[in-house]
Amino acid sequence: MPVNYATPAADQLFPVAGVRLGVAEAEIRKKNRRDLTLVALDAGCTVAGVFTQNRFCAAPVQLCRNHLAGGHEIRALVINTGIANAGTGEPGRQTAQASCDAVAELLGIKAEQVLPFSTGVILEPLPVERLKAGLPAAKADLKADNWHAAAHAIMTTDTVAKAASRVVTVNGKKISISGVSKGAGMIKPNMATMLGFLATDASIAQGMLDKLVKEAADASFNCITVDGDTSTNDSFVMIASGQSGASFATETDAGWAEVKAAIIAVSVELAQAIVRDGEGATKFITVAVEGGKDSEECRKVGYAIGHSPLVKTAFFASDPNLGRILAAVGYAGINDLDVDGVRVWLDEVLVAEKGGRAAAYKEEDGARVMAQAEITVRVDLGRGAAKASVYTCDFSYDYVKINADYRS
Amino acid sequence: MPVNYATPAADQLFPVAGVRLGVAEAEIRKKNRRDLTLVALDAGCTVAGVFTQNRFCAAPVQLCRNHLAGGHEIRALVINTGIANAGTGEPGRQTAQASCDAVAELLGIKAEQVLPFSTGVILEPLPVERLKAGLPAAKADLKADNWHAAAHAIMTTDTVAKAASRVVTVNGKKISISGVSKGAGMIKPNMATMLGFLATDASIAQGMLDKLVKEAADASFNCITVDGDTSTNDSFVMIASGQSGASFATETDAGWAEVKAAIIAVSVELAQAIVRDGEGATKFITVAVEGGKDSEECRKVGYAIGHSPLVKTAFFASDPNLGRILAAVGYAGINDLDVDGVRVWLDEVLVAEKGGRAAAYKEEDGARVMAQAEITVRVDLGRGAAKASVYTCDFSYDYVKINADYRS
Repeated sequence: MPVNYATPAADQLFPVAGVRLGVAEAEIRKKNRRDLTLVALDAGCTVAGVFTQNRFCAAPVQLCRNHLAGGHEIRALVINTGIANAGTGEPGRQTAQASCDAVAELLGIKAEQVLPFSTGVILEPLPVERLKAGLPAAKADLKADNWHAAAHAIMTTDTVAKAASRVVTVNGKKISISGVSKGAGMIKPNMATMLGFLATDASIAQGMLDKLVKEAADASFNCITVDGDTSTNDSFVMIASGQSGASFATETDAGWAEVKAAIIAVSVELAQAIVRDGEGATKFITVAVEGGKDSEECRKVGYAIGHSPLVKTAFFASDPNLGRILAAVGYAGINDLDVDGVRVWLDEVLVAEKGGRAAAYKEEDGARVMAQAEITVRVDLGRGAAKASVYTCDFSYDYVKINADYRS
Repeated sequence: MPVNYATPAADQLFPVAGVRLGVAEAEIRKKNRRDLTLVALDAGCTVAGVFTQNRFCAAPVQLCRNHLAGGHEIRALVINTGIANAGTGEPGRQTAQASCDAVAELLGIKAEQVLPFSTGVILEPLPVERLKAGLPAAKADLKADNWHAAAHAIMTTDTVAKAASRVVTVNGKKISISGVSKGAGMIKPNMATMLGFLATDASIAQGMLDKLVKEAADASFNCITVDGDTSTNDSFVMIASGQSGASFATETDAGWAEVKAAIIAVSVELAQAIVRDGEGATKFITVAVEGGKDSEECRKVGYAIGHSPLVKTAFFASDPNLGRILAAVGYAGINDLDVDGVRVWLDEVLVAEKGGRAAAYKEEDGARVMAQAEITVRVDLGRGAAKASVYTCDFSYDYVKINADYRS
């Protein structure tokens, strides 16, 4: 049961002209489930992506990096669930290549114009013949108003499909932005790669899109943590088709700020949905850190709090355990932090200042906030103007149950 | 129920000449429990310590640092449980000072010659009058063969008292080494500071002892992790009384290597006992990383595995989940790691090589190892000669239960 999240209805997910999606049941690992998604891009799209930093990155991730770095015009994405094709060595690289070859042949493009994505169990070989056999059905299903189906077809252990959509009008032109995501951090790492795909019909210059995908990831997918682990297959890809007629070639173009903000907002919505669907999650927690010398140190503090099993079990118990939060601030790695200057709030309740509990703080006020399903922990480091936020969930019996029982 | 650990009997803990210990019931937080320990050192001892890096370090930790840095001859340690005197601001510093003043007056020494330690709930004021009232009883109890009582008196949420002792004979002289420890990482952070005290009757030059305490901590207390959190009060102190007549002034002195090895072995035993008593622990896991370019990167990999809630829940479930271990190796932060050169063993079973599952690996072999109470995960990074080990425990339902229920 996700925390305050439900999949948008199909008609709330706007088509993006130039981007068609098709899904199929390919029996990659199980029968009777949609497990193959094909995304066909018209000529003229720009595409950019960010990928896992895990050294055991999966074979398809390596191909994605190569194809994007090679400057090829990307014309298709192919996404399978069930098998992650990670930890599969050289044979894995060959099956990922074979997937691209098959899509290229089917659509009459080059293999270098295809980006492959896999998510599911790792260390198992990808049954590429089944994937190839499923492609014609996915091609037959290609249509622009198919984001809802794609959101479902990329799910693995997700309990709900995740999608977001938004329309902005700038310079008299209507621009659509739609996206889908899946995963729950590494909470079930065998099948829980984090994937995000976002498309807009604005035209965005390649250099700007490369920059935007990093900036959007830093504000969204890179700000979420369920248990701190990083998958072998994490990917976030952004597509700009240009078919709305709205075009952005430089950062100073009129309307760009608005479009950029909308794209980042959709990215954040897609990323937060993953935390809201974190296995065993009963609460959604925003850790908002401000007053840092730079955003990096704010992020360190945010992650120290957001990763702490002690803090997360306290949230599960609705226990306003200030000691655990302060201890996490203290060990976040800011060596010259003056703890007497740190202030901490639970929502609007000031709980700590001057190196200890706030004088006016009453535990009943903290307990009231902790009982909520959505909680903001605000930390002011009192040493600068930088800030950063981290999104996380609590840590429940169900987390252990799900992860202990998962394979056994 | 600790994993393969029981407190040594009182007569297995050897007295260290020049070091006397006394305990008392001071009702710091609860009645009818030993919660105050006084350690009196004869003149001529050398003392060295390492302390928490947490910026919210407790008031007594600050005093310990000052007194050691000031070069004062340390003549006493005073340790209370119940209240940690952390996150208590300026009033906390005053009560820590008052504790030292009281011990100094009682023993006829200076306050700067006293090292104070507190462990227990944080953010609460230390009832220093009760501590002072308990000191005469602790003084009356002072004796050299009292390590067993001290091990019990420093416990907070520990389920067993932790102590270790060893005798080595070098150059015809018998040298005793005894120590006590408490804590379970930050697993119950309000009361679970990690403390370690070790004494030997060898004479060790101050510079060598300063170096040894760091080296021993790096091989013991700094290698253990229960949940990755760092307490506000963690301390490890080493005392060398010199009363055995064996004296070590330089690293090349005959017998030093043997004495040093014995001291480190006692430190490791004290530190591992904390993991074995980790709340909810059902297994003791050694992560032994070798083949690194330097020990720092080996340690990174060890901690990535040892901190991962996913790996730890898999151990709880006796699930040989290679994917989780490989993923942790991959995100440990070695940016130029060639994963094809990494090999992983569960005990003697080779489970992964060449970027994936080992060809000869059978899941039944992995499952057999995972069912044991003691497991070694061995990782060869294949890029150098450095190594490092990390000790951890598994992650069970009881961990969440204990930490979610602790204050509520």
